[in-house]
Amino acid sequence: MRRAIALAARGLGGTSPNPVVGCVILDPSGEVAGEGFHAYAGGPHAEVVALREAGERARGGTAYVTLEPCNHTGRTGPCSAALLEAGVARVVVAVSDPNPKAAGGAAVLRRHGVVVDEGVLTAEAEEVNAAWLTYVRAGRPHVTWKFAATVDGRSAAEDGTSQWITSPEARADVHRLRAGSDAVVAGIGTVLADDPRLTARPAAGVPVPARAAPVLRVVVDSDARTPAAARVLDGEAPTLVGVAEDAAVPAHLSPHAVRLPRVPGGIDLHALLAELHGRQVVSVLIEGGPTLAGAFLREGLVDRVVGYLAPALLGAGAAALGPAGASTITEIHRLEFAEVTPVGPDLRLVLRPKSSGIASSGIASSGPESSSLQSPKES
Amino acid sequence: MRRAIALAARGLGGTSPNPVVGCVILDPSGEVAGEGFHAYAGGPHAEVVALREAGERARGGTAYVTLEPCNHTGRTGPCSAALLEAGVARVVVAVSDPNPKAAGGAAVLRRHGVVVDEGVLTAEAEEVNAAWLTYVRAGRPHVTWKFAATVDGRSAAEDGTSQWITSPEARADVHRLRAGSDAVVAGIGTVLADDPRLTARPAAGVPVPARAAPVLRVVVDSDARTPAAARVLDGEAPTLVGVAEDAAVPAHLSPHAVRLPRVPGGIDLHALLAELHGRQVVSVLIEGGPTLAGAFLREGLVDRVVGYLAPALLGAGAAALGPAGASTITEIHRLEFAEVTPVGPDLRLVLRPKSSGIASSGIASSGPESSSLQSPKES
Repeated sequence: MRRAIALAARGLGGTSPNPVVGCVILDPSGEVAGEGFHAYAGGPHAEVVALREAGERARGGTAYVTLEPCNHTGRTGPCSAALLEAGVARVVVAVSDPNPKAAGGAAVLRRHGVVVDEGVLTAEAEEVNAAWLTYVRAGRPHVTWKFAATVDGRSAAEDGTSQWITSPEARADVHRLRAGSDAVVAGIGTVLADDPRLTARPAAGVPVPARAAPVLRVVVDSDARTPAAARVLDGEAPTLVGVAEDAAVPAHLSPHAVRLPRVPGGIDLHALLAELHGRQVVSVLIEGGPTLAGAFLREGLVDRVVGYLAPALLGAGAAALGPAGASTITEIHRLEFAEVTPVGPDLRLVLRPKSSGIASSGIASSGPESSSLQSPKES
Repeated sequence: MRRAIALAARGLGGTSPNPVVGCVILDPSGEVAGEGFHAYAGGPHAEVVALREAGERARGGTAYVTLEPCNHTGRTGPCSAALLEAGVARVVVAVSDPNPKAAGGAAVLRRHGVVVDEGVLTAEAEEVNAAWLTYVRAGRPHVTWKFAATVDGRSAAEDGTSQWITSPEARADVHRLRAGSDAVVAGIGTVLADDPRLTARPAAGVPVPARAAPVLRVVVDSDARTPAAARVLDGEAPTLVGVAEDAAVPAHLSPHAVRLPRVPGGIDLHALLAELHGRQVVSVLIEGGPTLAGAFLREGLVDRVVGYLAPALLGAGAAALGPAGASTITEIHRLEFAEVTPVGPDLRLVLRPKSSGIASSGIASSGPESSSLQSPKES
């Protein structure tokens, strides 16, 4: 199953709105006969790839699958049927399918006499599918907030200069993060101040997932102030501008604007995420602005924090994070370190909300988190 | 020599104003015959301890010493003479003695026909003696700035509450840091706000160096405002209050006050360190206050930064570091990560100024720093 999970991880960033899935088929003697993973939406499912490789050796064998085999006919046929047809005797499943449309695969297999074991390495398999599980269980995209700062938490010097606090290696890693997200979100403050392109531009040679669609650019812009000349409107990738329902939207923004309820301080972020969910955005990366990051955090909408810390000190300048609803120590946002990895001269910290695990999963994240503290394993 | 360096490290925190030194004696066949380290000022030197254990087996053997054997008679006799008397044939030295009073041991040994090899594992041996080498070469104590903060760099919430951002494990580690320093320094702001005791109170069972003197408490208090009832004056440990030369010193502060030149923003920190150097303070720990830390950093007087990062976010509240003389990105204080270690749920980061190595040593710190990024090796 560990191998199946590693296979699943190879699909990360390319499968939206599908989950990542890995599958290993053993022949009756226990030898590996086939391996597969789901690489992109519309492409063959992991089980189908692995069965194809295994051929006749699958008959009487065992399939290890990270997610319950699907039972519906979408762009591909149901995997439960494929496993039955191949004559697999036993199926081991890590995570049951929470998607009502696709679930029921295990029951069908059992009805046809296949032994189905569920719950094997569930925590690890949930982790690799964290984004998709949040998407399905919580009904909103999985949200990662990324920041880059000095060890004293500054993202810019006092005069506003910030190029560059972190290293080229860290910035390349950010492009990899972007390429693995369905949408990148920035606030209007960042758009006006830095005029970012918000596209994923991975370095040459870096393997990039085969995406069904380019990464969606999203600007949170209550008052529809994104200028016509802003790079986010350059057409290099699709762009959505979230504006307040009562905003006066200029003509150049009309094709991009989506009206959302106004709340104190901006637009309703829950509504924004619901809108993105409706567009099959499984994962978003919050990139720009301490204010926007603070708002997402205050609303309890951050599932993961990725911080790039430069070994540097400023002592003044813009803070990485703005007001986040914590005015006294008991309101502090407690998280836990999931990964700590050197990236060039910098340090990449990955944090997850404490005891939350994966949204709505009800599974406390404990052991695997702390034990991985020093092992780089970003997928 | 690696073993000798590890032995040397066991003396850390107890030997001031002496260096830490480790020694391993091999007999003529290459077997370890004796080991020793310098444990406390006035106690036997490493070579003497190792020679005592080796006895007659030292004759014709080799001594590995982390620091050039001393050649002067202080509280103990010269180690060069002890090595000659024991009949050691070869002495391997990691670091030459920069202390003019004690140097010359290698020359004496060579004059008496002993083979002396110098420069073996110098960088590692310099690192374990960083504090003492700074003390001797730069003529001032080695300065460590310690802070505790959230990953967004806040040391307190907006309302000033800060108990506790970091874990009990991290706080225990700080007491260990204090116990290993000759002096702990806080600013008057911290004394007035938090009324800290500034004593080293290691947890029961934690091995503490046998110190010749208790850790000196130092308050940077230009205007002599430390109240009579302040805990730093409770008599539990000696206290020095650095006041400006023109300050009106109240009677309760007279026994503790040292007058130092006034400079814009406070007292002259170089003069404070010179005063401490004169009192044989080899290492100081800057504990309290973003303002004081910023001032030390601005003056280029920070040799090491130890940061405890809690996996938490605040988004508002006091910053860990105050103005430090960097107003634009080119003035950023660049350092490098020397160690990254989990401490309970928190992360301890150790940083050193980039390319500075050990003050005035002229030796660039390169390889060993980066390779140790993930290996806990705090002594």
